[in-house]
Amino acid sequence: MKRSRGRPRQFDSETVLDRAVAAFSVQGYSATSLDELARATGLNRPSLYNAFGDKEALYLQALEHFVARLRAALADTVVAERDLPTALRKLFLGALAVYFAERPALGCFVFCTAPVEAVAHPAVRALTLGLVEELDALLGARFAAARDAGELPTHLDPAQMAKLAQATLHTLAIRARAGESRASLERFIEHTVAVLAPVTKPSRRRGTSRS
Amino acid sequence: MKRSRGRPRQFDSETVLDRAVAAFSVQGYSATSLDELARATGLNRPSLYNAFGDKEALYLQALEHFVARLRAALADTVVAERDLPTALRKLFLGALAVYFAERPALGCFVFCTAPVEAVAHPAVRALTLGLVEELDALLGARFAAARDAGELPTHLDPAQMAKLAQATLHTLAIRARAGESRASLERFIEHTVAVLAPVTKPSRRRGTSRS
Repeated sequence: MKRSRGRPRQFDSETVLDRAVAAFSVQGYSATSLDELARATGLNRPSLYNAFGDKEALYLQALEHFVARLRAALADTVVAERDLPTALRKLFLGALAVYFAERPALGCFVFCTAPVEAVAHPAVRALTLGLVEELDALLGARFAAARDAGELPTHLDPAQMAKLAQATLHTLAIRARAGESRASLERFIEHTVAVLAPVTKPSRRRGTSRS
Repeated sequence: MKRSRGRPRQFDSETVLDRAVAAFSVQGYSATSLDELARATGLNRPSLYNAFGDKEALYLQALEHFVARLRAALADTVVAERDLPTALRKLFLGALAVYFAERPALGCFVFCTAPVEAVAHPAVRALTLGLVEELDALLGARFAAARDAGELPTHLDPAQMAKLAQATLHTLAIRARAGESRASLERFIEHTVAVLAPVTKPSRRRGTSRS
């Protein structure tokens, strides 16, 4: 967004990061060369370096770029949707749309490419754990609100149900990238929403049938 | 185990594959060089090549070696243990013991290092999907037996509960490698076992629970 005073920057950072996400998504961080990143982004290596730093710095910025989009999607589903099963269904189906956006399906950029780098690259590890904890907190708040509203049986712990909901995202990501069919994963989502948000006995008539 | 007629082989394949698993587990397939694999296994590059083929072939054999150990562990827990919650608890805690065997925790060799390679290496993709499907089938049979024994509420689909149980393994693997604490994951396991294997009421009062 910022432009230097002298000559205008020849590229838009958001576009470059979109392309870096796409490039890193195919082979992962280690197998993607700087030459491939230059080709994918349309920038030469010195320009890439000046704008984003080395390959690890570019990868970290690509991960953060992806997380920022995920965060916006979560605000529209988990946070904004008042009905818990609907919120979860939208979350999981929305994730599936991202995971199957390319052929073959690439799964989740973070959960399919970052874990392998987490040991050799502490910054990748920290970013991955940060996302895991952010999702736990966001989903945990959502489950806690559902419990307060009588939508979740009281013997279920919102924080632990949040982890199981995130587990669902992790398995969807891995399964999509491994080649499981989208139809199979849609069936899994339907069943899992019913497990994560079981119908509670209505104290009045709350929670009557939804399609 | 087999020895060539002429001179004896200077190494044991199982030991070499154990060491290859350990080496690939740290940085993943792409970032681990043949020189590092030679150092880790104690074989020089020509010997490695003669015995196992190229780096991809060695990685695939390392993955299969790890899966064979996993299969043996599953026979002792999921298959042999008659009580469903006990079987699941043993499965998850057994996985955690593997995932936290090193410091920092490396998670699951297959689910933390193979997905990233699944797009560029179709053989890795096929092996990953094969393991996912094998675990689904094995766990699915276990949940089906539990349902037949009245240990699982009849509205739950054994095949889909199996996928959720495997989702638990996937998230444990990712979380361990990302740096979540073992104590936190043990709490998650306890809660998740209760969700995956909810206590059923004795048959005459089945399904009447209210919280």
